[in-house]
Amino acid sequence: MAAVRTAAILAVGSELLTQHRVDTNSLYLTGRLNDVGIDVVAKSVVGDSEGTLAAAIRHATAEADLVITTGGLGPTADDLTREVVASVLGLKLVEDARILETIRHRFERRGLHMPDGNRRQAGVPEGARVLPNPNGTAPGLWIENGGSILVLLPGPPREMQPMFDTGVLPQLAELSRGRRVLRRVIRIAGRPESHVEEIAHPIYSALASGDVPIETTILASPGLIELHLSARGTAESEMNRALDAGVSSLAAALAPAAFSTDGRTLEQVVGQELAARNWKVSVAESCTGGMLGARLTDVAGSSQWFAGGVIAYANDVKIHQLGVAADLIEKHGAVSEPVAVAMADGVRDRLGSNAGVAITGIAGPDGGSAEKPVGTVVVAVAAGPARVRTYRFVGDRAMVRQQSVIAALELLRRALLALPGRD
Amino acid sequence: MAAVRTAAILAVGSELLTQHRVDTNSLYLTGRLNDVGIDVVAKSVVGDSEGTLAAAIRHATAEADLVITTGGLGPTADDLTREVVASVLGLKLVEDARILETIRHRFERRGLHMPDGNRRQAGVPEGARVLPNPNGTAPGLWIENGGSILVLLPGPPREMQPMFDTGVLPQLAELSRGRRVLRRVIRIAGRPESHVEEIAHPIYSALASGDVPIETTILASPGLIELHLSARGTAESEMNRALDAGVSSLAAALAPAAFSTDGRTLEQVVGQELAARNWKVSVAESCTGGMLGARLTDVAGSSQWFAGGVIAYANDVKIHQLGVAADLIEKHGAVSEPVAVAMADGVRDRLGSNAGVAITGIAGPDGGSAEKPVGTVVVAVAAGPARVRTYRFVGDRAMVRQQSVIAALELLRRALLALPGRD
Repeated sequence: MAAVRTAAILAVGSELLTQHRVDTNSLYLTGRLNDVGIDVVAKSVVGDSEGTLAAAIRHATAEADLVITTGGLGPTADDLTREVVASVLGLKLVEDARILETIRHRFERRGLHMPDGNRRQAGVPEGARVLPNPNGTAPGLWIENGGSILVLLPGPPREMQPMFDTGVLPQLAELSRGRRVLRRVIRIAGRPESHVEEIAHPIYSALASGDVPIETTILASPGLIELHLSARGTAESEMNRALDAGVSSLAAALAPAAFSTDGRTLEQVVGQELAARNWKVSVAESCTGGMLGARLTDVAGSSQWFAGGVIAYANDVKIHQLGVAADLIEKHGAVSEPVAVAMADGVRDRLGSNAGVAITGIAGPDGGSAEKPVGTVVVAVAAGPARVRTYRFVGDRAMVRQQSVIAALELLRRALLALPGRD
Repeated sequence: MAAVRTAAILAVGSELLTQHRVDTNSLYLTGRLNDVGIDVVAKSVVGDSEGTLAAAIRHATAEADLVITTGGLGPTADDLTREVVASVLGLKLVEDARILETIRHRFERRGLHMPDGNRRQAGVPEGARVLPNPNGTAPGLWIENGGSILVLLPGPPREMQPMFDTGVLPQLAELSRGRRVLRRVIRIAGRPESHVEEIAHPIYSALASGDVPIETTILASPGLIELHLSARGTAESEMNRALDAGVSSLAAALAPAAFSTDGRTLEQVVGQELAARNWKVSVAESCTGGMLGARLTDVAGSSQWFAGGVIAYANDVKIHQLGVAADLIEKHGAVSEPVAVAMADGVRDRLGSNAGVAITGIAGPDGGSAEKPVGTVVVAVAAGPARVRTYRFVGDRAMVRQQSVIAALELLRRALLALPGRD
């Protein structure tokens, strides 16, 4: 078998051609294939139509060393992948007695009789290797034919993923002849993409033309930037050294905004900083309505360092539950630095926690003014010396709220870093 | 021009072949194309590689009446769509003086000199119709060639969408000869998919074989089910009548769990029920950590009916901020019906709102026991006679939390519906 360098992924199923569904299997497969140095050169979705599917398989085998299909292996009449692949390759389907027995047994264990339709799932193209499916009835298939490899996998991720990892990936790792793609991710909070680009560009340009070339891509979401570094080749230790050096220089140039180089999220980093001090944080949220608390408690085990909070949407709640003085709100407005500081102090003191974080702002679409337009958000942190900052975020209501949460997490992280040593 | 019935969508760009990116343009386009009765028969993603792109264009034009490409129209060397399409179709690229002037002007308005690379964006294949781009430099192109139509659109959604809506859709509506797909969505809370399927199946089987055949698909997400009904044809009023009748019988069969037939989300429905009574609700959240408040405040204008809440993650917060008796927690545990009821009452009374909703549960991965396994969640509503329910959700931490929020919204909705008349 020649070395496998390129792959095409083909998702089969008419439901994946509606406006409500996205093929996510290809993202999983792409990550795994890249790990063993195989590039995905094309991916497609086709419906359960014989002609379209056959043409897509012909096209894909012409374009890549390896074709992976997902879906269309089920027992119903519109599951066509097995038959169409066999016909395109000119291979006879032979009923495999062992597969048939396994499927029959699966039904009997649940006290059911195997429906006739499932018999088709025991059809195997001549010469194909069968990939067992511990999580469903449809077995997968590995077919080598005239220099190309076709791998047929079921559509449900919980069947597809373990089948790929145990039955396909080890073989592909061998066939890719030791080529690997190694990766690192640097996460940066509270910097615009253009700013990160400006600082990072000279560094990653140099990395791209080093002895071990490193490729860098920037992914931006509201309030967060990720730099993805990758190196490809066979010399793993040199690649790792080059990547580590690249990460170090980029992280140093982007300090202190670069908060993670090891995959941790911002909320995980904050949680670990709190846990290391044996501290608990509490939150006071106005325009984010609970999003900051929700994000902190996304982290399993967050009860160790998260006490709770007050969602102070109405001014009355700010006054009575957080102890914000009514005349402070009257004088400065609910979206103001003095009120944000009072909210952070209030939640910290009332909930008896070590640190308090407050968010108050105008998420829109209504409520803006000339002086405080939609997107004006104030964040305060009560932990050590009070910190407070006013932001002007752009974007719709959802984007303003998302950026507010990131800004609050980042201001808290900075406050924790500036404090004297951990416990 | 023959009638246009089928479309293939081709997204161009190597970044869309990584594990971190999904082509979402095709979802937008699919919805719009379906509206005018055009079916998407295949969609693909290819990188910025001349050979692969050329082969993909050839393949797509063979498979569908209409091919839409997105991306690859930019000014850099790896933007190849324009050139490759022209070459595949055998058309000469001619520089369009007007486009060049528009691009140059765009730069000059910002005090910049047009870079040389942008000159390529003025190239137009002979006979093509230019689609102006008010939001960027890359114009789109409409090319008719030997019975097939190719439409080239830029990749950024904010450039692509208005260009498609104003420059492409009206023509396609004509070419589809009055064919339309009309749709309805029924949303259902708190019912397992199999349960909805069992009730709905006889009804939608009958709808499928009616005079105006109606197609039904079920989309399930944790805690929520959507039934999508669609009718295709040219007789709009008959189609609308048939859809309305179908929606009525399904909604009646699935009452009271079917909460919306007009596109409203569960939180919008709850908000409107509250607003109609001139009521405000407040929330007390333990395992969801603020997610319920976040979801309610996703709705613009929610300050009219949402007061705020308490994120009572630690037991101390339940006791001191919500007035839950410490011995209630000791006797029944924090995840128990008496504690949930006390939390709902507490938040309602302390925040001076008309209704209170509480969630307390074990989201996992830790904290479960034999008696109260991970996934045990108690929801209570204080509005009229107290309502409280214990759930056993399946799934990981994120899924348990998501289902908890839906369950709380749904229990609140039911409580509001059961109350005597609105204001």
